[in-house]
Amino acid sequence: MAQPIPTSRILRRLLASGAHGRAANLLGRIHPADVGPLLGDLGPDEIRTVVELLFRQQRAENLLRELPFELLGDVMEALGDSRLAEVLGRLEVDDVAELVDALPETRREAILERLPQQRQRELKRLELYPASSAGRVMTTSYVALDETMTSAEAVESIRASGDLADSILYLYVVDENHCLRGVVPIRRLVASPSDRTCGELMLPEPVRVTPEVDQEEVARIVARYDLLAVPVTDADGTLLGVITVDDVIDVITEEATEDMYHLAGLSEEDRVFSPPRLAIRKRLPWMVLNLATVILAASVVALFEHTLEQMVSLALFLPVVGGMAGNGGIQALTVTTRGIALGEIEFSTGIRAVTKETIVGLSLGAATGLICALLAFAWSGNPYLGFVLFLSLVVTLTFAGLFGAAVPLALKAIGQDPALGAGVIVTTFTDAFGFLTFLGSATLLLDRLH
Amino acid sequence: MAQPIPTSRILRRLLASGAHGRAANLLGRIHPADVGPLLGDLGPDEIRTVVELLFRQQRAENLLRELPFELLGDVMEALGDSRLAEVLGRLEVDDVAELVDALPETRREAILERLPQQRQRELKRLELYPASSAGRVMTTSYVALDETMTSAEAVESIRASGDLADSILYLYVVDENHCLRGVVPIRRLVASPSDRTCGELMLPEPVRVTPEVDQEEVARIVARYDLLAVPVTDADGTLLGVITVDDVIDVITEEATEDMYHLAGLSEEDRVFSPPRLAIRKRLPWMVLNLATVILAASVVALFEHTLEQMVSLALFLPVVGGMAGNGGIQALTVTTRGIALGEIEFSTGIRAVTKETIVGLSLGAATGLICALLAFAWSGNPYLGFVLFLSLVVTLTFAGLFGAAVPLALKAIGQDPALGAGVIVTTFTDAFGFLTFLGSATLLLDRLH
Repeated sequence: MAQPIPTSRILRRLLASGAHGRAANLLGRIHPADVGPLLGDLGPDEIRTVVELLFRQQRAENLLRELPFELLGDVMEALGDSRLAEVLGRLEVDDVAELVDALPETRREAILERLPQQRQRELKRLELYPASSAGRVMTTSYVALDETMTSAEAVESIRASGDLADSILYLYVVDENHCLRGVVPIRRLVASPSDRTCGELMLPEPVRVTPEVDQEEVARIVARYDLLAVPVTDADGTLLGVITVDDVIDVITEEATEDMYHLAGLSEEDRVFSPPRLAIRKRLPWMVLNLATVILAASVVALFEHTLEQMVSLALFLPVVGGMAGNGGIQALTVTTRGIALGEIEFSTGIRAVTKETIVGLSLGAATGLICALLAFAWSGNPYLGFVLFLSLVVTLTFAGLFGAAVPLALKAIGQDPALGAGVIVTTFTDAFGFLTFLGSATLLLDRLH
Repeated sequence: MAQPIPTSRILRRLLASGAHGRAANLLGRIHPADVGPLLGDLGPDEIRTVVELLFRQQRAENLLRELPFELLGDVMEALGDSRLAEVLGRLEVDDVAELVDALPETRREAILERLPQQRQRELKRLELYPASSAGRVMTTSYVALDETMTSAEAVESIRASGDLADSILYLYVVDENHCLRGVVPIRRLVASPSDRTCGELMLPEPVRVTPEVDQEEVARIVARYDLLAVPVTDADGTLLGVITVDDVIDVITEEATEDMYHLAGLSEEDRVFSPPRLAIRKRLPWMVLNLATVILAASVVALFEHTLEQMVSLALFLPVVGGMAGNGGIQALTVTTRGIALGEIEFSTGIRAVTKETIVGLSLGAATGLICALLAFAWSGNPYLGFVLFLSLVVTLTFAGLFGAAVPLALKAIGQDPALGAGVIVTTFTDAFGFLTFLGSATLLLDRLH
């Protein structure tokens, strides 16, 4: 059974009564992944004590690795510089890089200097790779063998690797230049006679990635080929590191959050329990931008103030046109950005996607336009009002489909995140076109609308 | 290197010239996961030939397992009943269940009858579990050992399991009642001396799930504890099956798509390259619902027709209030639904989330309201218009935060999908409140606005 997450209440009571030994025992029985969420309910002093207890148990590094982002600052502060450096020294280099990035600028140097020379060099090398690339998430702890080794010798080298053994899923066969030749799944090793050589056992030409590849692409490859780990090699085939499936799961979750967030104009740090201060600071620029774009749409309405003066009831239909435009645009946008994220769509097939969404938009516009036209006719008794609404919804939803599919593809083509900002562009243009069509055609038919 | 995806052109040319032998060779060199996307570019006759060739290579089952949903119908049709049954017989039971579900009703019975008795029984058992539950995604192929077995005997039993060996990551230690006692990671087995018993090697009390648990919860557990597989046991602890990490990755991707889609009112089958017909059929009901809700918002405007008649320029600000309302609501909604999906928020902490989003909404409303008020004052020279706009944006965005956080939590509390329909409820109410505040306060201050 998953460890029942103990109510933080027991822990708080133990801490309050100074029963640190019992608190340490309790913590010792909790999976590191469950300690993080628990800390969310504690005060700063209590967090400090818990971190202290975990440090003594040599478990602080697992806590750091598992901690939700919003608690990281507090916990790293609770550890002093030298302790933090000691804890970081026990983690794998990709985890260290992530944690160092989360440190305030002022503290970063001090911590880096206290790390072992070897670690410092590895971190420098990691920083050469672009953000969110394979090079940043790979671990450099793996077992490399040569082709002539027998299965029995390979097993021996796994035993010798000690602690590391627990994370081994594949063994990598390399030549004298450390060039990747093949991969032996540990399951295959176990099932094979002990005198077979690694060269015989290995799967040649394994799927691999270069360190510059985006982590999202790595995740797609791992998901596509059902891998447990993927080796990272440079252009010459030299083995540099390995990306394991647990990191890939984190990437998939992170990227899905990013896509949803970007569609809504949110920053990744803005989580459900982030302090309101942070949420406001992160959302305000986007809200101001949104204000600018809705004013743009409003200025289209302003062009027709004269028409509205003559027939004020037209204003009633502005929320109808705007609301339908927004919904249609978001649907086309969601289908397209998700298709891009899942690798189902490339720029070459983009035209097909745009055509499809435009056709769908046109059809949905015709169907809802007809309903809306009949309702308007029933309400006003004027067939021309119905016609104007029908035309507006057809045009609006056609553009909603067109923009919703084309904008993320265009953003991707110019090297931008397809989701970021797409929402605001699509809704602004669709709204503007919708209002233009509605008020424009109403102006032309004004004599008949009365 | 990942197999370079061969342009479907080569394959088409080989098929067109009747060079089936060479086409079969080409297919033989392509990873099953890459064949699916390739089929998307082929016509129905070509698909039939490719499926025939793969069937002869005994590789059709891998194709079926990897195929994108929209191609599944065509490919399963291309295989006759008896062949399809033969192919299904070679797959694991969770895959079979998924494929059988995708068959048209009329054909399902005929196929099921042709499956081996054992498989039919297993499928019946699977159907007892709720949709999207652990019981539906688990595989029943796993290796169970008893505590007294030595490491060497365990290795022997892996060798004996043949084909299965390739998917073994953990060995499950069970007692005489098939009750799960512990788990031995295969990595640990390899690294241990051959005379150690499984009882000594096993990690006792492993994390497990019951078959009724939702697949999303299973994915969260696997991600949280960095597992490669999780055992499924009934309430008595009897081992029923295993869920592996590759299935978990599919679940995570699927659930992320579902959340994004539900927020936008889309159905999961509506993918970027689905036929327009399907997209229209799936989106139309939602569009009609949306029409109904925007008419509701419009009817709030209709209440104030008299006010608009006296001051038609108020209509210009309707898109501003509506646009800001929509954006604020979607942001609060996205943060909250994502928090629910990632398990960061429970109903008990829901009040905190709602409070936070309400405060954030209030603050964003005050900030953008102020900007908007100053602009309106600069444009009209009337401070009261500025005040009305300030008030409207404060009220609207406060409600947007409140509804955006509260609606998904309320949906979850009554056992519904938190994302489904939340978008339409939130935007309708927020729009309606926004228009009410704006036109209501404008009506009260009408004398001063001129």
